[in-house]
Amino acid sequence: MTQTSNLNSNVTNESEEREDYFEYFFDKPGSEPGTLCIEEDAVPSQLILTNYDEKQVAKKVNISPNELPHYITSADSLWLDIQGLGTEKTLKQIGEIFNFHPLLLEDIVNVPQRPKVEYYDDQLVIIFNLVTSNPEEDGFSFEQISLILGENYLLTFQEGHNKDYFDFIRTRLEKDKGKIRSLGVDYLTYLLLDVMIDSFFPVLEEYSERIEKLEDEAIISPNRKTLPKIYKLRRELLALRRAIWPQQSVITTLMRSSSNFMGSKVEVYLRDCYDHIIQLLDIIESYRELSSSLMDVYLSSISNQTNEIMKILTIISSIFVPLTFIVGIYGMNFEYMPELSTKWGYFICLGVLAMIGFSSLFFFWKRGWLKRFDVVEEQIE
Amino acid sequence: MTQTSNLNSNVTNESEEREDYFEYFFDKPGSEPGTLCIEEDAVPSQLILTNYDEKQVAKKVNISPNELPHYITSADSLWLDIQGLGTEKTLKQIGEIFNFHPLLLEDIVNVPQRPKVEYYDDQLVIIFNLVTSNPEEDGFSFEQISLILGENYLLTFQEGHNKDYFDFIRTRLEKDKGKIRSLGVDYLTYLLLDVMIDSFFPVLEEYSERIEKLEDEAIISPNRKTLPKIYKLRRELLALRRAIWPQQSVITTLMRSSSNFMGSKVEVYLRDCYDHIIQLLDIIESYRELSSSLMDVYLSSISNQTNEIMKILTIISSIFVPLTFIVGIYGMNFEYMPELSTKWGYFICLGVLAMIGFSSLFFFWKRGWLKRFDVVEEQIE
Amino acid sequence: MTQTSNLNSNVTNESEEREDYFEYFFDKPGSEPGTLCIEEDAVPSQLILTNYDEKQVAKKVNISPNELPHYITSADSLWLDIQGLGTEKTLKQIGEIFNFHPLLLEDIVNVPQRPKVEYYDDQLVIIFNLVTSNPEEDGFSFEQISLILGENYLLTFQEGHNKDYFDFIRTRLEKDKGKIRSLGVDYLTYLLLDVMIDSFFPVLEEYSERIEKLEDEAIISPNRKTLPKIYKLRRELLALRRAIWPQQSVITTLMRSSSNFMGSKVEVYLRDCYDHIIQLLDIIESYRELSSSLMDVYLSSISNQTNEIMKILTIISSIFVPLTFIVGIYGMNFEYMPELSTKWGYFICLGVLAMIGFSSLFFFWKRGWLKRFDVVEEQIE
Amino acid sequence: MTQTSNLNSNVTNESEEREDYFEYFFDKPGSEPGTLCIEEDAVPSQLILTNYDEKQVAKKVNISPNELPHYITSADSLWLDIQGLGTEKTLKQIGEIFNFHPLLLEDIVNVPQRPKVEYYDDQLVIIFNLVTSNPEEDGFSFEQISLILGENYLLTFQEGHNKDYFDFIRTRLEKDKGKIRSLGVDYLTYLLLDVMIDSFFPVLEEYSERIEKLEDEAIISPNRKTLPKIYKLRRELLALRRAIWPQQSVITTLMRSSSNFMGSKVEVYLRDCYDHIIQLLDIIESYRELSSSLMDVYLSSISNQTNEIMKILTIISSIFVPLTFIVGIYGMNFEYMPELSTKWGYFICLGVLAMIGFSSLFFFWKRGWLKRFDVVEEQIE
Amino acid sequence: MTQTSNLNSNVTNESEEREDYFEYFFDKPGSEPGTLCIEEDAVPSQLILTNYDEKQVAKKVNISPNELPHYITSADSLWLDIQGLGTEKTLKQIGEIFNFHPLLLEDIVNVPQRPKVEYYDDQLVIIFNLVTSNPEEDGFSFEQISLILGENYLLTFQEGHNKDYFDFIRTRLEKDKGKIRSLGVDYLTYLLLDVMIDSFFPVLEEYSERIEKLEDEAIISPNRKTLPKIYKLRRELLALRRAIWPQQSVITTLMRSSSNFMGSKVEVYLRDCYDHIIQLLDIIESYRELSSSLMDVYLSSISNQTNEIMKILTIISSIFVPLTFIVGIYGMNFEYMPELSTKWGYFICLGVLAMIGFSSLFFFWKRGWLKRFDVVEEQIE
Ligand SMILES: [Mg+2]
Ligand SMILES: [Mg+2]
Ligand SMILES: [Mg+2]
Ligand SMILES: [Mg+2]
Ligand SMILES: [Mg+2]
Ligand SMILES: [Mg+2]
Ligand SMILES: [Mg+2]
Ligand SMILES: [Mg+2]
Ligand SMILES: [Mg+2]
Ligand SMILES: [Mg+2]
Ligand SMILES: [Mg+2]
Ligand SMILES: [Mg+2]
Ligand SMILES: [Mg+2]
Ligand SMILES: [Mg+2]
Ligand SMILES: [Mg+2]
Ligand SMILES: [Mg+2]
Ligand SMILES: [Mg+2]
Ligand SMILES: [Mg+2]
Ligand SMILES: [Mg+2]
Ligand SMILES: [Mg+2]
Ligand SMILES: [Mg+2]
Ligand SMILES: [Mg+2]
Ligand SMILES: [Mg+2]
Ligand SMILES: [Mg+2]
Ligand SMILES: [Mg+2]
Ligand SMILES: [Mg+2]
Ligand SMILES: [Mg+2]
Ligand SMILES: [Mg+2]
Ligand SMILES: [Mg+2]
Ligand SMILES: [Mg+2]
Ligand SMILES: [Mg+2]
Repeated sequence: MTQTSNLNSNVTNESEEREDYFEYFFDKPGSEPGTLCIEEDAVPSQLILTNYDEKQVAKKVNISPNELPHYITSADSLWLDIQGLGTEKTLKQIGEIFNFHPLLLEDIVNVPQRPKVEYYDDQLVIIFNLVTSNPEEDGFSFEQISLILGENYLLTFQEGHNKDYFDFIRTRLEKDKGKIRSLGVDYLTYLLLDVMIDSFFPVLEEYSERIEKLEDEAIISPNRKTLPKIYKLRRELLALRRAIWPQQSVITTLMRSSSNFMGSKVEVYLRDCYDHIIQLLDIIESYRELSSSLMDVYLSSISNQTNEIMKILTIISSIFVPLTFIVGIYGMNFEYMPELSTKWGYFICLGVLAMIGFSSLFFFWKRGWLKRFDVVEEQIE
Repeated sequence: MTQTSNLNSNVTNESEEREDYFEYFFDKPGSEPGTLCIEEDAVPSQLILTNYDEKQVAKKVNISPNELPHYITSADSLWLDIQGLGTEKTLKQIGEIFNFHPLLLEDIVNVPQRPKVEYYDDQLVIIFNLVTSNPEEDGFSFEQISLILGENYLLTFQEGHNKDYFDFIRTRLEKDKGKIRSLGVDYLTYLLLDVMIDSFFPVLEEYSERIEKLEDEAIISPNRKTLPKIYKLRRELLALRRAIWPQQSVITTLMRSSSNFMGSKVEVYLRDCYDHIIQLLDIIESYRELSSSLMDVYLSSISNQTNEIMKILTIISSIFVPLTFIVGIYGMNFEYMPELSTKWGYFICLGVLAMIGFSSLFFFWKRGWLKRFDVVEEQIE
Repeated sequence: MTQTSNLNSNVTNESEEREDYFEYFFDKPGSEPGTLCIEEDAVPSQLILTNYDEKQVAKKVNISPNELPHYITSADSLWLDIQGLGTEKTLKQIGEIFNFHPLLLEDIVNVPQRPKVEYYDDQLVIIFNLVTSNPEEDGFSFEQISLILGENYLLTFQEGHNKDYFDFIRTRLEKDKGKIRSLGVDYLTYLLLDVMIDSFFPVLEEYSERIEKLEDEAIISPNRKTLPKIYKLRRELLALRRAIWPQQSVITTLMRSSSNFMGSKVEVYLRDCYDHIIQLLDIIESYRELSSSLMDVYLSSISNQTNEIMKILTIISSIFVPLTFIVGIYGMNFEYMPELSTKWGYFICLGVLAMIGFSSLFFFWKRGWLKRFDVVEEQIE
Repeated sequence: MTQTSNLNSNVTNESEEREDYFEYFFDKPGSEPGTLCIEEDAVPSQLILTNYDEKQVAKKVNISPNELPHYITSADSLWLDIQGLGTEKTLKQIGEIFNFHPLLLEDIVNVPQRPKVEYYDDQLVIIFNLVTSNPEEDGFSFEQISLILGENYLLTFQEGHNKDYFDFIRTRLEKDKGKIRSLGVDYLTYLLLDVMIDSFFPVLEEYSERIEKLEDEAIISPNRKTLPKIYKLRRELLALRRAIWPQQSVITTLMRSSSNFMGSKVEVYLRDCYDHIIQLLDIIESYRELSSSLMDVYLSSISNQTNEIMKILTIISSIFVPLTFIVGIYGMNFEYMPELSTKWGYFICLGVLAMIGFSSLFFFWKRGWLKRFDVVEEQIE
Repeated sequence: MTQTSNLNSNVTNESEEREDYFEYFFDKPGSEPGTLCIEEDAVPSQLILTNYDEKQVAKKVNISPNELPHYITSADSLWLDIQGLGTEKTLKQIGEIFNFHPLLLEDIVNVPQRPKVEYYDDQLVIIFNLVTSNPEEDGFSFEQISLILGENYLLTFQEGHNKDYFDFIRTRLEKDKGKIRSLGVDYLTYLLLDVMIDSFFPVLEEYSERIEKLEDEAIISPNRKTLPKIYKLRRELLALRRAIWPQQSVITTLMRSSSNFMGSKVEVYLRDCYDHIIQLLDIIESYRELSSSLMDVYLSSISNQTNEIMKILTIISSIFVPLTFIVGIYGMNFEYMPELSTKWGYFICLGVLAMIGFSSLFFFWKRGWLKRFDVVEEQIE
């Protein structure tokens, strides 16, 4: 059946470069705890530091990790945004400065990890995902964001493959003098979580449309290309659910545990995050159920098509096979066949053939088999 | 296969204007927390104020938000019903007067949100759904109702797209001097929740009938239109469950948490709401299971049809194909074919053909294949 | 396809009068809490009062509600059995005498409600279901029984459509001087719950037999009538589970909550009820799983039938279509066809035809396709 | 389709004597609590009494219940094993001697009950199942064992249909002077529970083999007998799970509740029971999932077979139907058909026919349809 | 159908030597608690002892159990690694020296047991699984590792069938003077658990590739070999989940219970194990869902193939069967058939035949049936 597979060679190519939505990082068996694995295509690390309090904001781009200790001692809020996980030395230096547990830097650098929240003695660690829709084709890609929240500082580690999603938060921090400045780094943490949760909605919106199209296709004109589309849909929804599910539990944990890191004023804001993430899960579950129904619908549609094809074959055969038998009789070469020599024999024979043919047609019309074809022909004109 | 899709162009049109039951509101990524998004087709906001105590009722229609502060200070119960979410200025004014949290007005205006209950310091917030059956076709539409319950006031925000479902409660409030006046705004809240829960029952009633019809159709006369009907049914039941499920948890939360907002006298009334919402979920789950079985039933029915079609083809072919072969033999032009010149050859041949034909028929009758067609023909007359 | 639907007109009729197992009561939207809805076919209410203590029993049939207050004050145990929910005045009078909450009478009269247990200040309310097998056909019907247990009295409200299931308990009360008299109204409550739970077992017993029959039918002789039978089975088992599930939670609640209404001596008896209701659920779940497998079995059997049909068609066609082609060759009218004029041409031709025919047969026999038909024919004789 | 059902009459017979794995005992509606129902085929009750302490063991077979009171007063451990539930008088006497609650004897005698553990004031009651593999055919049968554990006595009630599974424990008790004698009746209880749990493993072992055979059958040579085998497998696994599930909860309850009946020394032994019963459930769940996949595999295999059959038919028809048309043309009797009179017409015609035939074959070979048949034929030789 | 089964005899052989992923140990019914069952192919036991503290490490290979008591009394940390469970005497000696509960040695030796953690008075017992990918074919094999953690010693029992996975930990212990030496035997326990969890990832990686290949195969070129591949995939994923699930609960238990055995410093390391084991389960669940969809995809693809086959048959038959009937008419031997004697009769007839043939083709082209074949043919060139 090699021919059949050649036939869809473009499909094969497409699938070879397919996104691996179920990617995960795993230790090489035997590697020591705390080993960092910088990916080959990792973006070199850049540091953006923002010191702010109610009155002023100071932003420093591309500073060196050596300058960092100077700022931590200051009394105001500090946000250090690390973009790119490619410079091992820089990352290790930051780990030392902020006193990371050996396994923490591993979680930040060896992406992707499962989203989670962890409480260390003097730090709250959040591993979260941001999602970006692929601009030119279906699908999306994840990016891990790690947030380390201390008493008056927030560290964020972005993979940096896509655009900087936190830039407009930085802009708002510089321009807006209200809540965002006065409420401290825990409110800033909320704002970033909100951005990351909001990133899922435009992606989901695309699935709403794809499902509608697939519904029509599976019911009205099911074809061989419908099947991989439905399967792809299910695979991607599964990946989305897998990404959001642990994030929902991160938000729940943050809401419930009254820690020193997250003030009570931020709790009501986290409830808003919770609402949206529950809604995300809710919609994905709905889409998953619909996509599961779609597979059944497709299979039924294909069976319907089989029936239509069989009906045409059966009608044609049932009409002409008996007629061919009858004309075969009068094609026999027996010497004594009285009908052959009568004058009207041929025409009577033709009449009988027509009668039998139309009876068959009437039988199928009675059973409602012709109806459909009538409709088809009407529509075709 | 373009022809096939033209063929159901009416189906396509129907589906293009299909109700989006899985609609939800989502923030534009990057928007600030608390941003209001007034929909283009939003109804301008109208205020209906009702002050009442055991002795008297005062209803004021279409008052301006500026007049509101005057009434809040009064000692009796106050119900402010806001119909339409289209006038941003009015809504923001109300938010200021009643001291809303920045995120609260967002939940009220940016519809639809997921149903929920939230406790603020001096307010209890309930987001709930009301459902209306579509009068001219299958299906339904949701409307979000937000209730904000304070110590002696109740605010209700209706989307206002459909008729005012709370009007007859207002009428009862004016006429009836009993419990409804003396029990305060928490009892009034119960009455409104009851109205909203009760709105689901007539909608479900329609589904009971649709399922019965689809059962008959899928079993007795399955056709291509049955499939989208079953799929549509499942889709709508999924949407209904998705709407009711969080509302059940709203009622449970209200029943369990003994707050200052809901008095102990109202608790037993909430139990009645709970009974009905559990029953709603129970029925929807039953319908969903039935609809899931229906898909299997449909697929089996289609396979049964295939069998019937195949049987006709097989019977016709099995009888006439061998006979045609035999008459073909005597149509050969060999010079020496002894049978051809015998006197009764032709008639013996016809007899043999008849015998073979009837043996085949007998074989199929023995296997029970003809039975069904007999029945069909009897019924047809 | 109207003919096909006429064809099963008896099936349609049967399904039109089908039992609505998913019936439920729902408020007319806008109706006031506490509104009673007497059904048109409701049975007029009759009162049977039984006063009893360890020494004596007094039974009064058909007393008027006006006489009731006299008996309640007495020191012994009192059982008031109300049969029929048709007389609104009587029911309301009883409600007043026994000090019912406004929503309680609604739950008793507006049947069917979901089974539940509720604790009021001085009353324990149990809504329960009794099931009766339909004597002349498959299926069953539910009847709601409401029990109101006070300190020394028990009220029972029966719909009264079927025979009085509690009569032999009354008889035992009159004749037996043992535990039944000395243990009070809570033990009596247990006895009635036991009767209602026991009513499910004979119904389930019928399903055991139906499943066995359907197993044989689906595997050995699947036909078009098998499908609706399996669907009906699943529908009824779903309804049974829906009825029993909340009752199990009623019994669990009664067992766990040590109230003033249910003495500790009765607890061990409730455990027996619990065992049986768990067993009911257990069996129904097993039956539901079997019925779900049956649908798959049926679909596979139908596919098997398709294969058998196709095999017959393929064997017949594969043997005779090539032969017909060959005889067609010698039926051509070419002037120069050397074979035609040879003496043994015809017989050699017949021999070749026979050889080809038997080779085909041998090919199919080798593939095992003929085996089955042999078996069939043997069995038929 | 009566013929088809005759055809498998042996299958029908087999299924008529099929084991009812979902058997359960239920009260005749209206029967009094505590009514004993001795089955007709119940084994007459025999008593085996074993008194033992660390130093000595005394076994008395077939004693009369009248002699019992004498032994209970003694200070050592006592094990009374009742084999057979057929002698109502004996059972009632034992019930009186050991002070049974009225409902307890019912649970022991009216088998089968659901496995459970119950705590009475001075007794711990365990209802458990033992399973025996059917020696001559597939399947198994359950036997209920009831254990009543008092302070220094253990009563065991066996149905007695199969061999006495506890006999070798009795032997060990007589011969072994170690732990079994010194640890008391709670350790003895553990030993018996262990025996009953261990009885499930050899039964499960048989299912492992059956699944392997069915995997091969469903994939390689699916036939009509495969289907009922898979269904039977699922049915029996369902019954096994139904039996073991409540027993797991019995062991869990015994482990958790530190009662006077079960000493802390026995707890670690119960953990071993727990491990094994969890493993039983685990394996059964795995087998159930495999059996569920098998049904899908079977259905797909059948569809594959349909395809193979259809391919043969299509190849034969596609080759010979057009050829037959062409020879039909030259069989027409038109007076003026120039080809007929050319000298090489016939042979050119034969050549064209051959060419067309081989082109068709080439088309199918290109599509890979002939490959499979080649393989088949090679294998057949 | 014996031929069909011969045909795949290599498949049968393959499956006969198939790995039993659902293997488990079970007691021979009637065996005494604590009975050891040494497998025939068990590896003879070898002891590797490692004494270490912050300053020094002493490794002794192949020591005799008699020498053991000497080392236990020493003050430093002790790791005794027993490789091979084949020497009963050695194992029993170790059990006596370390004061094992009678049932503990049984759990260690009678492999495989279900993974679990158990707390004894002075020992923490962990039963865990390690997995190894089969080098030459698909699949994997499990090996049970038992860890017994005392106050200052760790015993590990390996089955020893595969390479020693703990050797490089021993090497690290000898070379690295850091944490691994100073943190004691509980940190060593973590390191070994981490090795065992990490062993699952390379195995899962292979499944990712297998699923991708099967996706393409099921959609583009489904054939009879695809089905057993999907089934095998599901079976192996089920086995993997069955192995990992209880291990996740082992890690959870270790994390939660603050015991004397596991110090608080190790807790944060166990969280890393927890993350990875949750990720394992997560991925396996995703793969299981995908494999379940694949079965549906395969079935739909097969149905699609049936349709393609049927279309070819129907097109060929619908074109040539009517034409054959017409040429049959003019092959009849009636004496008076006016058309036959006209000069252009034959050519007009041929023209009509061509017209009818092309009309049929046009009808199928309109329905889009020919499209696909065009594509196929283009691709074939
Ligand atoms: Mg690691
Ligand atoms: Mg995109
Ligand atoms: Mg990445
Ligand atoms: Mg947001
Ligand atoms: Mg949309
Ligand atoms: Mg919100
Ligand atoms: Mg927002
Ligand atoms: Mg409507
Ligand atoms: Mg709306
Ligand atoms: Mg209501
Ligand atoms: Mg109805
Ligand atoms: Mg109610
Ligand atoms: Mg299914
Ligand atoms: Mg009501
Ligand atoms: Mg009945
Ligand atoms: Mg009723
Ligand atoms: Mg009972
Ligand atoms: Mg039975
Ligand atoms: Mg009982
Ligand atoms: Mg009973
Ligand atoms: Mg057996
Ligand atoms: Mg029995
Ligand atoms: Mg055991
Ligand atoms: Mg064990
Ligand atoms: Mg054991
Ligand atoms: Mg491998
Ligand atoms: Mg092994
Ligand atoms: Mg690791
Ligand atoms: Mg990969
Ligand atoms: Mg980690
Ligand atoms: Mg399925």
